[in-house]
Amino acid sequence: AYQRLTHDFFMPEKLREELQKKAEATLQVMPNSQLPTLDNFHTLVALDTSHQKSATVFGFPGWVYKATSSKNGKMYCLRRLEGYRLTNENAIRSVKDWRRVDNGSVVSVIDAFTTRAFGDSSLIFVTDYFPLSKTLVEHHSTSTNRFGNRVPAAVPEKVLWGYIVQIASAIKSVHAANLAVRCMDPSKVILTDKSRIRLGACSVLDVVQYDAQRPLAELQQEDFIHFGKLILAVGTNNFSPNIVLKNAVDQLGRTYTAELRDTVAWLLTPAQAPAVKSIDDFLSGISGHLVSTFDSSLHAIDSQTSELSRELENGRLLRLMAKLGAINERPEYEGDRNWSENGERYMLKLFRDYVFHQVDADGRPVLDLAHILRCLNKLDAGIDEKVCLTSRDEQTSFVVTYRELKKQVTAAFAELQKPAKGRY
Amino acid sequence: AYQRLTHDFFMPEKLREELQKKAEATLQVMPNSQLPTLDNFHTLVALDTSHQKSATVFGFPGWVYKATSSKNGKMYCLRRLEGYRLTNENAIRSVKDWRRVDNGSVVSVIDAFTTRAFGDSSLIFVTDYFPLSKTLVEHHSTSTNRFGNRVPAAVPEKVLWGYIVQIASAIKSVHAANLAVRCMDPSKVILTDKSRIRLGACSVLDVVQYDAQRPLAELQQEDFIHFGKLILAVGTNNFSPNIVLKNAVDQLGRTYTAELRDTVAWLLTPAQAPAVKSIDDFLSGISGHLVSTFDSSLHAIDSQTSELSRELENGRLLRLMAKLGAINERPEYEGDRNWSENGERYMLKLFRDYVFHQVDADGRPVLDLAHILRCLNKLDAGIDEKVCLTSRDEQTSFVVTYRELKKQVTAAFAELQKPAKGRY
Ligand SMILES: Nc1ncnc2c1ncn2[C@@H]1O[C@H](COP(=O)(O)OP(=O)(O)OP(=O)(O)O)[C@@H](O)[C@H]1O
Ligand SMILES: Nc1ncnc2c1ncn2[C@@H]1O[C@H](COP(=O)(O)OP(=O)(O)OP(=O)(O)O)[C@@H](O)[C@H]1O
Ligand SMILES: [Mg+2]
Ligand SMILES: [Mg+2]
Repeated sequence: AYQRLTHDFFMPEKLREELQKKAEATLQVMPNSQLPTLDNFHTLVALDTSHQKSATVFGFPGWVYKATSSKNGKMYCLRRLEGYRLTNENAIRSVKDWRRVDNGSVVSVIDAFTTRAFGDSSLIFVTDYFPLSKTLVEHHSTSTNRFGNRVPAAVPEKVLWGYIVQIASAIKSVHAANLAVRCMDPSKVILTDKSRIRLGACSVLDVVQYDAQRPLAELQQEDFIHFGKLILAVGTNNFSPNIVLKNAVDQLGRTYTAELRDTVAWLLTPAQAPAVKSIDDFLSGISGHLVSTFDSSLHAIDSQTSELSRELENGRLLRLMAKLGAINERPEYEGDRNWSENGERYMLKLFRDYVFHQVDADGRPVLDLAHILRCLNKLDAGIDEKVCLTSRDEQTSFVVTYRELKKQVTAAFAELQKPAKGRY
Repeated sequence: AYQRLTHDFFMPEKLREELQKKAEATLQVMPNSQLPTLDNFHTLVALDTSHQKSATVFGFPGWVYKATSSKNGKMYCLRRLEGYRLTNENAIRSVKDWRRVDNGSVVSVIDAFTTRAFGDSSLIFVTDYFPLSKTLVEHHSTSTNRFGNRVPAAVPEKVLWGYIVQIASAIKSVHAANLAVRCMDPSKVILTDKSRIRLGACSVLDVVQYDAQRPLAELQQEDFIHFGKLILAVGTNNFSPNIVLKNAVDQLGRTYTAELRDTVAWLLTPAQAPAVKSIDDFLSGISGHLVSTFDSSLHAIDSQTSELSRELENGRLLRLMAKLGAINERPEYEGDRNWSENGERYMLKLFRDYVFHQVDADGRPVLDLAHILRCLNKLDAGIDEKVCLTSRDEQTSFVVTYRELKKQVTAAFAELQKPAKGRY
């Protein structure tokens, strides 16, 4: 038989587990947090759990938190630079230009402000939040072999090209918006999903080094060099800032194809003025890798679509259970204490028993989720299949179709809704 | 406030509805079907509902069915050519080369065989099945304006570039496997999702025109011309086979950018021998569009991921509701008719009332799904938030945390499971 290839470039093997962990990480709070509440953000949780604070990348000690917006209840990521003093209002205003950049490989920058809430003068950048993301340094710097020793793990070439394609796509959007990335330090590029990376500290240097007023063209040309250094660091597993470029490029050539090495070498070599590099030229040069990464993303969409189709019934059944829950055992309705026991509701009560309170021949509970889901699915579809419902005293039985039961749910729920004080 | 752009290039607005309809279409059967059962396929359903049978594209009248494989129970698409007689066994064997092509913009070819089950001698191609897909002719040929008149609808340029990128990606994979597409007729390219297209009749001409033994290089060069004609047909809304290419290209130039027109013109112009065209050159020339289509696909992955997370949450809450359902109002347990009213179960009964039987100040039911989901989410997470539960006679109140309630659900459910007759 024909075995289809697996396409897991952008898809984690255990997608559900992964999403579950992310959902938990998103909800997680710190019970006795000492962190302040800011004007528009509350429930801060530190993401930056290594307690070494280096000030190398931005010139200020940095902190990263997740926080809930008081405006819309959503989670954001806050990057705090400690001890920053704003001297020029325009510096912080430059951040709003970043709102024009909307790219799947750039962490969107939402806002920036200063605050004294931490007891100092801090600068805060608000960005999108990606639960359980890791920096490229965290993800790639070392791994542990089966003897428990930490050894550098070689990144597969396909993954490196995937990174190159994504960063190139990010730079294209950034340059098109008349901006420059400026910071592509591997500790500021985050891995948010399998093989998915995003530039994580855009706009920070625009504010912090605002006064230098360096020309955009110069900064954009420098982005190519940052780009080359980033790939070099990941490809050689060397995240030290004092890397000797020529040696590192040679080393890259020993592990990877000449094409990869030459691509990185091209990025690292400044154009001879008056010539300038353009990201379009770069993209055109890597179009073969671009198209195969594109195809991987289409395959990822396809597998996600089938996962989603499989899960879609959850939402429907949940709504149906909520309706049944609102009807069954309701203590009273319009002064009638027996509302939930009368008429069609009595049938729905027996149906509830049939779904949830099955017992086997010995009277032991049958706890079979599959039975529950099967019954609810049939009810939701309102099919013509018959079901036999028995009263609790076993004196009476009714044979009804799921179609009739569905009508009864709809009728009973409509009755509850009658003077429409709320809605589903 | 900052309004994020919407990225719906690859994502239908009503994703759930769309997936639901596709699931239904997949399951749909024909009650009194006259269609035969084949050796390995049963429950054939015709997809080809227009009853005009033209034999223009392949030289044989064609039919398209969905069918269930008897081997693995999965759905496939069968394309039948009526009246085809196999003269050379090698012709049909050529299909197996297509198994090497695994591309998100090509309908995968699984197998081919001949059969007499339809009462004639038919050739059958087995491919992947995409529910509710439409050919580009069906999708683009005409639309109906608000006066009920059918008018050609201009395809947005972005969509056309998206098609160009996908077809180029498909050709790249096909040529890399030493094959040629050969048939890119707009009636054989299918739209399977929003803006997602796939080459739908690969391998057919390899079999049907096997005897001609045309050189691969020639067929591959011809693919560029087929490609150009396909885009021209969609872009000018003219699906007639007798289109005058030069006029149509001019017309394209009046609706779209010069870049698009020139791209199509390039495709339509054969290379001057000994020069040959390569798909790599083409891809490199359209890399700007390639990268933006790639970014759209990443955005689609991101929105799908959040949809999927939401559905997984529904799944968790569904399981939790099923547990609560098994506990609450259980008529008796181990001979104890009050089991569900005693101890921790009493608290869970009050909690059930709190979740489902809220009433407003006037005693009217509050039917707020958001409230129900919020409560269940908190219960599922077992957070430290407190909730005040009141007895039905309003004489007693208890303050408990969701954490305690979660413990109680777990304990009560474990008790029901004690002699483990079934499992969740
Ligand atoms: N937008 C984001 N969403 C979620 N987590 C993020 C986001 N940005 C960064 N993080 C996470 O926060 C943590 C700290 O990030 P940070 O940029 O401080 O890196 P670092 O390695 O601590 O570098 P430095 O030494 O410069 O502080 C990392 O685990 C990173 O994955
Ligand atoms: N792999 C597939 N999965 C699902 N449906 C498909 C598949 N391939 C084709 N179809 C659908 O089958 C129907 C008929 O396809 P077909 O190729 O016969 O097109 P047609 O327009 O009828 O052309 P012709 O006139 O040549 O028969 C179309 O609606 C098409 O979308
Ligand atoms: Mg840090
Ligand atoms: Mg047909």
